Amino acid sequence: MSIPSPDLAAAEQARARQTQLTKPAGALGRLEAASVWMSAVQGQCPPHPFTRPAVVIFAGDHGVARMAGTSAYPSEVTAQMVLNFLSGGAAVNVLARQMGASVTVVDISVDCDPSYVSDVDVRVAARRVRRGSGAIDREDAMTIEECQRALRLGADLADEAIDAGADVLIPGDMGIGNTTPAAALIACVLEVDAAAVTGRGTGIDDHAFTRKRTAVTEAVARGRLIDLSRPQAIPALLACLASPDIAAMVGFMLQASRRGVPVVLDGVVSCAAALAADRVDGAARSWWAAGHRSTEPAASAALEALALRPLVDLDLRLGEGTGALLALPLLTAAARTLAEMATFDSAGVSDRPDAPDASGTS
Amino acid sequence: MSIPSPDLAAAEQARARQTQLTKPAGALGRLEAASVWMSAVQGQCPPHPFTRPAVVIFAGDHGVARMAGTSAYPSEVTAQMVLNFLSGGAAVNVLARQMGASVTVVDISVDCDPSYVSDVDVRVAARRVRRGSGAIDREDAMTIEECQRALRLGADLADEAIDAGADVLIPGDMGIGNTTPAAALIACVLEVDAAAVTGRGTGIDDHAFTRKRTAVTEAVARGRLIDLSRPQAIPALLACLASPDIAAMVGFMLQASRRGVPVVLDGVVSCAAALAADRVDGAARSWWAAGHRSTEPAASAALEALALRPLVDLDLRLGEGTGALLALPLLTAAARTLAEMATFDSAGVSDRPDAPDASGTS
Repeated sequence: MSIPSPDLAAAEQARARQTQLTKPAGALGRLEAASVWMSAVQGQCPPHPFTRPAVVIFAGDHGVARMAGTSAYPSEVTAQMVLNFLSGGAAVNVLARQMGASVTVVDISVDCDPSYVSDVDVRVAARRVRRGSGAIDREDAMTIEECQRALRLGADLADEAIDAGADVLIPGDMGIGNTTPAAALIACVLEVDAAAVTGRGTGIDDHAFTRKRTAVTEAVARGRLIDLSRPQAIPALLACLASPDIAAMVGFMLQASRRGVPVVLDGVVSCAAALAADRVDGAARSWWAAGHRSTEPAASAALEALALRPLVDLDLRLGEGTGALLALPLLTAAARTLAEMATFDSAGVSDRPDAPDASGTS
Repeated sequence: MSIPSPDLAAAEQARARQTQLTKPAGALGRLEAASVWMSAVQGQCPPHPFTRPAVVIFAGDHGVARMAGTSAYPSEVTAQMVLNFLSGGAAVNVLARQMGASVTVVDISVDCDPSYVSDVDVRVAARRVRRGSGAIDREDAMTIEECQRALRLGADLADEAIDAGADVLIPGDMGIGNTTPAAALIACVLEVDAAAVTGRGTGIDDHAFTRKRTAVTEAVARGRLIDLSRPQAIPALLACLASPDIAAMVGFMLQASRRGVPVVLDGVVSCAAALAADRVDGAARSWWAAGHRSTEPAASAALEALALRPLVDLDLRLGEGTGALLALPLLTAAARTLAEMATFDSAGVSDRPDAPDASGTS
């Protein structure tokens, strides 16, 4: 199944309509580009605000955190946070309530006995790809077969959300240590130095930061053995130095694009998955918008490579989908201004005399 | 009437509560500081989202635009846009509907016969301070008496909005040419070069930009004759090189602070008014948040001087209150995360072992 192109005619209509609204051309800044993107992905101008946003949280643990000590938190927190999502107490739950979004959490590769969710919702862990991931500074994160399963699971999760009526998807992440494989994946795909993309994640101290940079460097060295120009290089790379949860997110984003459903990216983990998905099919990215700029340097590197500018820039570094959710009211504003503002003609307002399409009423 | 201090105990409670929520300390980035500010200005922790935001639009014309050609639009557009606000077709109306805010437009100094609103709402122009302003590159914007009337009118408008139940105020602006007095006021107060703060406003071409920079330079030269250290220097400066609408905005912000009601600043015109209000009473600014970063360089200069960091940074340059309205969902997110998130204790989530107030469950 190939990825369709967004509607370029609707995008052109949006660009033209922006020049007729009662404001100086360009005065709504980046909301104008957002309204063009929304028109393109919805195939209509003006676009409507997204009304059925769906957050899917990909939960997984990372052997590198446990083995190399790259996080400030113990891996047990991943499972605890899954339960927190299910009881509605996490930041993503609060913001999803505010924005009218659904939240689904899926245990892709949490490192604990799957019975931890049996009292709450046994389906959360029913499709787990594996328990935790290999310590990527020294071994593969998973097998190729596990990676393929993760990619398919992610695609299934996109299908399920879309079939349930979602009109925009948000990939959220939860996993102690997950910024380590995200940084390694981004460094490897972009061929940049590990030191340039490694950040402090949840807020690690200098010692852990040194360990993390070393782990990313070693993971990247392992990943550089893979020839990225060959077919199936990305699944091989994901298996080598990423993780099942990130692989699932890659499958999720690709499937959303195949289905023609827009995605709002969140923090560094979703940016890493997006970069990998882009290398699988460069047509996918036109279905995506960048929700926010994480403080992790790898996120900015990935977004720049994808030519996506984030809407929100508030120093968030939480993941879960929180940064993407914060962008939704801005997208609503972009859609509503394009749809509801008066035009120079309809309001009897004089356009500037030198404007290319001045209405000439002055 | 003096300006009260926001509630520092509530702010401290908010800071402490942020460290107990189920997220790494600081991971909500600048939303955390916003939640502290909201607690302080509301005198309660957690704060509630603002539910009764009120935009008051200060409309006025500027002699310098007509005389020196510093805008891309004819001055007639100001009155036309007032009518557009009243019929709900402007960007500020659309965003106010989205955010649940009221919009009031007041003709402070529009340069046309006041009968233009007689068919719609005669009260809009009933308190007009004067018709237009003097061309500030060569003459005073208004008399001191007119300036005092404008300051009082602005204070009355704050009182009226607050007495009608507003829990946060947004000063909006509309006036062809109004970025010229805004830049001049900011340059004069900050003692910086006119060239460093003059921007392209609605999007003027190079010729108009040269004229505008010259006009700002000449206005600033006139303003530098005023000794800013003397009492009543700010009203004198406003009369010299600002405008009645900006003076009214100064009165509005000072009165909001006296009443203990928060203000969200918008673009360069409100930043200029804020800077002037700050020089009248340095206690006022703790009641303000910066909504967005305008592309006008003077806005950033003023915000830096006020030590305020804007929440939204999307290259908007429209004014009207639009940038401040876009910040409201972010403030709601700040309040709701602080109020609704589970704590490490309540959710049974392990805090980091090295955290100062770890719950010790790991």
